[in-house]
Amino acid sequence: MKVEEKHIKRCIELAKKGEGYVSPNPLVGAVIVKSGKVLGEGFHKKYGDTHAEVNAFENSAGDVRGATLYSNLEPCCHSNKQTPPCVPLIISKGIKKVVISNLDSNPSVNAKGIQQLQDAGVEVITGIIEDEANELNKFYFKFVSKKLPYITIKIAQSADGFMSKTKNEQTWFTGKEAAMFVHRQRAKYDAVLVGANTVSVDDPLLTVREVKGRNPKRLIIDGSLSIPLDSKLVAGDDPEKTWVFTSLNSDDKKIIALLNVGVKVFQLKSENNKIKLIDILKKLAHEMITSLFVEGGANVFHQFITENLFDELILLQSPIKLGSGVPGFDFETAGDLKIIQKEKIGIDEKIILKKKIDHFFTGI
Amino acid sequence: MKVEEKHIKRCIELAKKGEGYVSPNPLVGAVIVKSGKVLGEGFHKKYGDTHAEVNAFENSAGDVRGATLYSNLEPCCHSNKQTPPCVPLIISKGIKKVVISNLDSNPSVNAKGIQQLQDAGVEVITGIIEDEANELNKFYFKFVSKKLPYITIKIAQSADGFMSKTKNEQTWFTGKEAAMFVHRQRAKYDAVLVGANTVSVDDPLLTVREVKGRNPKRLIIDGSLSIPLDSKLVAGDDPEKTWVFTSLNSDDKKIIALLNVGVKVFQLKSENNKIKLIDILKKLAHEMITSLFVEGGANVFHQFITENLFDELILLQSPIKLGSGVPGFDFETAGDLKIIQKEKIGIDEKIILKKKIDHFFTGI
Repeated sequence: MKVEEKHIKRCIELAKKGEGYVSPNPLVGAVIVKSGKVLGEGFHKKYGDTHAEVNAFENSAGDVRGATLYSNLEPCCHSNKQTPPCVPLIISKGIKKVVISNLDSNPSVNAKGIQQLQDAGVEVITGIIEDEANELNKFYFKFVSKKLPYITIKIAQSADGFMSKTKNEQTWFTGKEAAMFVHRQRAKYDAVLVGANTVSVDDPLLTVREVKGRNPKRLIIDGSLSIPLDSKLVAGDDPEKTWVFTSLNSDDKKIIALLNVGVKVFQLKSENNKIKLIDILKKLAHEMITSLFVEGGANVFHQFITENLFDELILLQSPIKLGSGVPGFDFETAGDLKIIQKEKIGIDEKIILKKKIDHFFTGI
Repeated sequence: MKVEEKHIKRCIELAKKGEGYVSPNPLVGAVIVKSGKVLGEGFHKKYGDTHAEVNAFENSAGDVRGATLYSNLEPCCHSNKQTPPCVPLIISKGIKKVVISNLDSNPSVNAKGIQQLQDAGVEVITGIIEDEANELNKFYFKFVSKKLPYITIKIAQSADGFMSKTKNEQTWFTGKEAAMFVHRQRAKYDAVLVGANTVSVDDPLLTVREVKGRNPKRLIIDGSLSIPLDSKLVAGDDPEKTWVFTSLNSDDKKIIALLNVGVKVFQLKSENNKIKLIDILKKLAHEMITSLFVEGGANVFHQFITENLFDELILLQSPIKLGSGVPGFDFETAGDLKIIQKEKIGIDEKIILKKKIDHFFTGI
């Protein structure tokens, strides 16, 4: 068992190199081992590129016949996509044994890949380091099973539980390490999301600057289309990465101005200029956004939490006290949550919470 | 003289390989020759890439010291651009003699390149195969001197001088060879232009299909925004290559629909929904469109010809008679033109005309 865990750990390590680039595909690493010797490794580098298994075969030195293939995810067997399925390749290469962490919950694969391998006489072992591999592909699993993005809410707050002094003023109280952590998340998630008030007050960039990585799409919920046209998300770099969600009756001239600089505008039905969150999320899924990092402000957090539309909550707790201000995260209203991780991050504390029971969206 | 012509002809041949890709830069080829032996060749491949002279040096086998550099265009000497200037490179390489066709009429260069070469003791000969080289870079010379695109009007008409049976019906009477010629032009020009009526009646693709080459931008003059949203230029491939010129008061919802699929919309001031042609041309120059191929229909031709806003006119004359219909090109209204070329092209006849005196836009 030790050996299998070692190789699967390496698969997960390899898979992570694709973070931020493979969406809406899963993160996959693969290792080919024969007589205790690693013949080759591979991972899925970016969407549209060859799969991890194919890359592992291509990188293999020596005869792979009779070898064992390790991968964090069940190999694909469906051909309704760009790249050829991996299962026939694995069989044709004479692989004797396949060791994986998770089944692929994509309905086109789900256990069928394993079945085909077994039918061809290949031994299959599943469930190795399953939890870590589940966590690795949490975006993908949520997306293919619920047809909605995986949603993480990030709230930074003071030691006494306030998000900012007032609603119309930016308060910055978390440290460099917390900022680096946030930027690392941005590089992984397909999109970050803020409300129009945050754009007006903070004028954020929402880019990845503290660490290396690609910039996410930047989404703004703006029912009454109040964001300034000279805000950085509109007038700055890469306006085509800025997507605005607004009402059907929003000012046409302003929409034209946004579209003209390259900003994408989605007009959705609304009531009193409030768009239903679920309508935005469905639209995002339609646009192949598999993961969403919600960065504020107070109204947006409130909406996601009270409507129970999130998978994960990250609290960045500063040691600084504000005395008064806009109240931050309230355990009372957030339902049954369990703390997954709690650790110091520079001067701050990072607390990650998830639902106790994943009853998220049952019935949809 | 014979030898110089031979090498300059080769420069022009090389330069043409960049057609359609170097705009707004000029087409340039370069050949380095020493003791009668060609050491290296190069051409400007695409906008942003290295210049022809640099490529010729890079491709040169043997010592270029004391060699002669041939090029159809005066080497650049200005550094207010992406790539380093070529004149200092030529001097540092020890080139003894430079032979060119044209001076670069770009005000940043215009004879200064030659001056610098001569000051460094390099012999310079100009004016070799000048007319052909002028024709080669007619787009560039027009653009840098007049700050407007080079405009060619292409009219296909019947033997008895009609463009179509009626205004609301497409009539196709020219042959395969004429179509190939038209597509070859599309691959060279930055943009092709039609009126809204042509889009409604013909629903053209305006792409390059009969020959190899890149597709041009497709421009539509549509003051009252009447083009159907399901027309091929809007709902087909590459909508971002479709640019619509319309009035400030055009229907906002329709503009939003166009922008949303990726079409570019320019709103210009108009009178009775008619936009001044010169305003469109100035906007095009601002967007770095150096050349324009006007493909119809009757109203658009009429406007370009009566306002004298063109450099070249190509008539494709079919042997077929229509008897009646929309009148085609009328020499009377087109001002003082001279025939540059007249030749059979498949079943049709191609006639190319230019202004007798190039008084185009004097005073602007």
